[in-house]
Amino acid sequence: MGLEHLVRATCVRCGSHYGTQGVYTCPGCGIEGILDLEYDYDAVARTLTREALRSRVGDLWRYLELLPVDSTRELPHPHVGMTPIYDVPRLAAAVGVRALKVKDDGRNPTASFKDRASAVGVLKAREQGSDVIACASAGNAAASLAGFSAAVGLKSVIFVPERTPEPKVAQVLIFGGTVLRVKGSYDDAYAVCQDACARFGWYNRNCAVNPYLIEGKKTVGLEMAEQLGEELPDWVVFSVGDGCTLAGAWKGLWEMHRLGFLSRLPRMLGVQAQGSAPLVDEYVRREGSIRPVEARTLADSIAVGQPRNWRKALRAISESRGAMLAVDDASILEAMRRTARLAAVFAEPAGACAVAGLTRAVEQGIVGRDESALVVITGNGLKDVRSATEASAQPIDLPADMAGLEQVLRARQLI
Amino acid sequence: MGLEHLVRATCVRCGSHYGTQGVYTCPGCGIEGILDLEYDYDAVARTLTREALRSRVGDLWRYLELLPVDSTRELPHPHVGMTPIYDVPRLAAAVGVRALKVKDDGRNPTASFKDRASAVGVLKAREQGSDVIACASAGNAAASLAGFSAAVGLKSVIFVPERTPEPKVAQVLIFGGTVLRVKGSYDDAYAVCQDACARFGWYNRNCAVNPYLIEGKKTVGLEMAEQLGEELPDWVVFSVGDGCTLAGAWKGLWEMHRLGFLSRLPRMLGVQAQGSAPLVDEYVRREGSIRPVEARTLADSIAVGQPRNWRKALRAISESRGAMLAVDDASILEAMRRTARLAAVFAEPAGACAVAGLTRAVEQGIVGRDESALVVITGNGLKDVRSATEASAQPIDLPADMAGLEQVLRARQLI
Ligand SMILES: Cc1ncc(COP(=O)(O)O)c(C=O)c1O
Ligand SMILES: Cc1ncc(COP(=O)(O)O)c(C=O)c1O
Ligand SMILES: [Zn+2]
Ligand SMILES: [Zn+2]
Repeated sequence: MGLEHLVRATCVRCGSHYGTQGVYTCPGCGIEGILDLEYDYDAVARTLTREALRSRVGDLWRYLELLPVDSTRELPHPHVGMTPIYDVPRLAAAVGVRALKVKDDGRNPTASFKDRASAVGVLKAREQGSDVIACASAGNAAASLAGFSAAVGLKSVIFVPERTPEPKVAQVLIFGGTVLRVKGSYDDAYAVCQDACARFGWYNRNCAVNPYLIEGKKTVGLEMAEQLGEELPDWVVFSVGDGCTLAGAWKGLWEMHRLGFLSRLPRMLGVQAQGSAPLVDEYVRREGSIRPVEARTLADSIAVGQPRNWRKALRAISESRGAMLAVDDASILEAMRRTARLAAVFAEPAGACAVAGLTRAVEQGIVGRDESALVVITGNGLKDVRSATEASAQPIDLPADMAGLEQVLRARQLI
Repeated sequence: MGLEHLVRATCVRCGSHYGTQGVYTCPGCGIEGILDLEYDYDAVARTLTREALRSRVGDLWRYLELLPVDSTRELPHPHVGMTPIYDVPRLAAAVGVRALKVKDDGRNPTASFKDRASAVGVLKAREQGSDVIACASAGNAAASLAGFSAAVGLKSVIFVPERTPEPKVAQVLIFGGTVLRVKGSYDDAYAVCQDACARFGWYNRNCAVNPYLIEGKKTVGLEMAEQLGEELPDWVVFSVGDGCTLAGAWKGLWEMHRLGFLSRLPRMLGVQAQGSAPLVDEYVRREGSIRPVEARTLADSIAVGQPRNWRKALRAISESRGAMLAVDDASILEAMRRTARLAAVFAEPAGACAVAGLTRAVEQGIVGRDESALVVITGNGLKDVRSATEASAQPIDLPADMAGLEQVLRARQLI
């Protein structure tokens, strides 16, 4: 199941159609010609029903009809997806919306939503007979790809920028991946990886150019539609780097609407970090092109100065009558604290960025105070402990005497 | 539901029975008199059936009849339990058993199995009207308690030993907990915490002495019985610090046997780190007492020199016709690598310790090569990145020229 429902691949730049085998970008448009896969939804609707879903396993493979994988082969074992969604009224009050839910996608196997893409990616690599799969990553895709390569016995090669947080590098290494540290930014690592894949014939997992990976990412949208149904809030909020994640989530939501699981679609809010906001820039300018920037933000996962998949992301924003905006690093740290203390979810900066953006969107009147929202926390805070420490108070070294201790405790209203 | 099935509390040292309200340790035996809660299993069996479980939510509250909580109150929202179990044939081959499964309990909300205890702990604190809950912890219980306190709006005070890994401290702080760093070991922190709770009237979450917390921990046993049923392997393997975890898991398994979910029980294998193995020592000596040691191991979560709950743990070993042994730090690091590369699970040292112990038990003939085992990975490796880095190769700084790159790649058989 899976492959036979794939109808065609369409170039997001020129609209040309292609078959779905072996084409990765539009030959006419080159690297700018990202492809989008389409399915035969009437055929899918015959088997993908609420009834059928009830008896399927609780991970992303439950949506096999909408995934471009050959399910006659063995699927990687780590349990991906069906991450929990929480009602968080205290955070709702702080953010200023009527009702707020968070979906904790940091609960995936390697602690970020990237596992959704990697699960599909390693299968495609195997289908093509590759032994080695490579990607450039600010960290989460790296850890995720290394984990899923370990799961299926592939070798992984990861190009990371210099300033990748240690926990993410540690994850890759423990899974046995080869880490090549590139002097420079994510964008530099990306360029080296593209070259190396072309030269050595490695499978290229770079999400921006590989149309299969976004199909994995869209499962976050399929899931929220299934989990919430008509309870789906007015707005769905994601942080944005390259743009694939928000675009993928929208695709999943759209498909569930097409299949009759949803009667209406939410609006998408995309949030970037102020120091790395070329998509927000184009969203405002509407020039049909991206002006690359030099990315500067503590939210390393979304420090993408030259996004590749911006067309899909901006299309999702406009199709959903959504919006985009940027937030500064201080408000990202504040959102980390609030999300941890009021929703009990420890988010990495790129995850908390979405909470910060929603707060700002309410202040600006983009999202109404009487509206509801769902924020997806895309990565666990353990991935970037330095930022968490920056966002927090310090531990207190136990005073030697009781009087000293009592003073500290009283100041914190603990006694 | 819940409380009405509780029958009595029994002292594990002298066997005296008590009611289940407000008693935390046996008055006759003092701190050595840990209590064990008993339920009316015939009553429980009437409602806790396979049929009933089918329609319950997929977290630990599905076993409410066997939990000492008043479910008419609001339950904390973070999704705990029902963590995945994987078949891992490549790791089985490396370890030397016929079949091996791992249960990834690092997939809990704060990335360790301690969330099972904290979920119950914060409810008990609220039932007693406490505003502040405290514990001493080598790290995981700390992060977990802070997270669950945030979830229900309690204040948390955490006493940690000096050498607690930074990620675990960062978790507590971001959740808004107060961290008091005690100069000394876990055992020192434990002593200070006991005093402070007595003095300030805080709720004491210390697992060893609080009989309610092990009830949360036992859900790992309830779950594996439900998830695997008659497929439950011959051996179930845990790492051991204080001893509550293994004891709790055994209690859960025993209860599911009592309720008819299992027709036979597995044998329990308890694994300590060589530098901190007082339970293994008593298991060998059988003197009926513990000789405290000065704990020395990189597996910080199980660096417990003076275990409090050893009676329950050793009882579980003997009731299950199980065994205990110790492994050195080098084999814990090796197990971290293997578990990551062959099972795609990133374990913290205390989690991987169980894998190392199983390997050694096979070498020693305690576990047969034709037997099967289930290892529970009790914490995620992101909790202790320093150890992961120690266990791994280094990242490679990208050589400036192509020739240099090709040489590196060829050495790793990547081209
Ligand atoms: C935690 C986290 N959040 C958000 C994003 C943004 O995703 P995208 O680059 O697809 O826009 C990423 C990916 O880079 C990420 O790792
Ligand atoms: C990751 C991890 N594994 C194992 C253990 C051992 O549990 P216990 O101390 O209950 O024996 C602990 C608890 O301290 C832990 O944090
Ligand atoms: Zn094109
Ligand atoms: Zn007693």
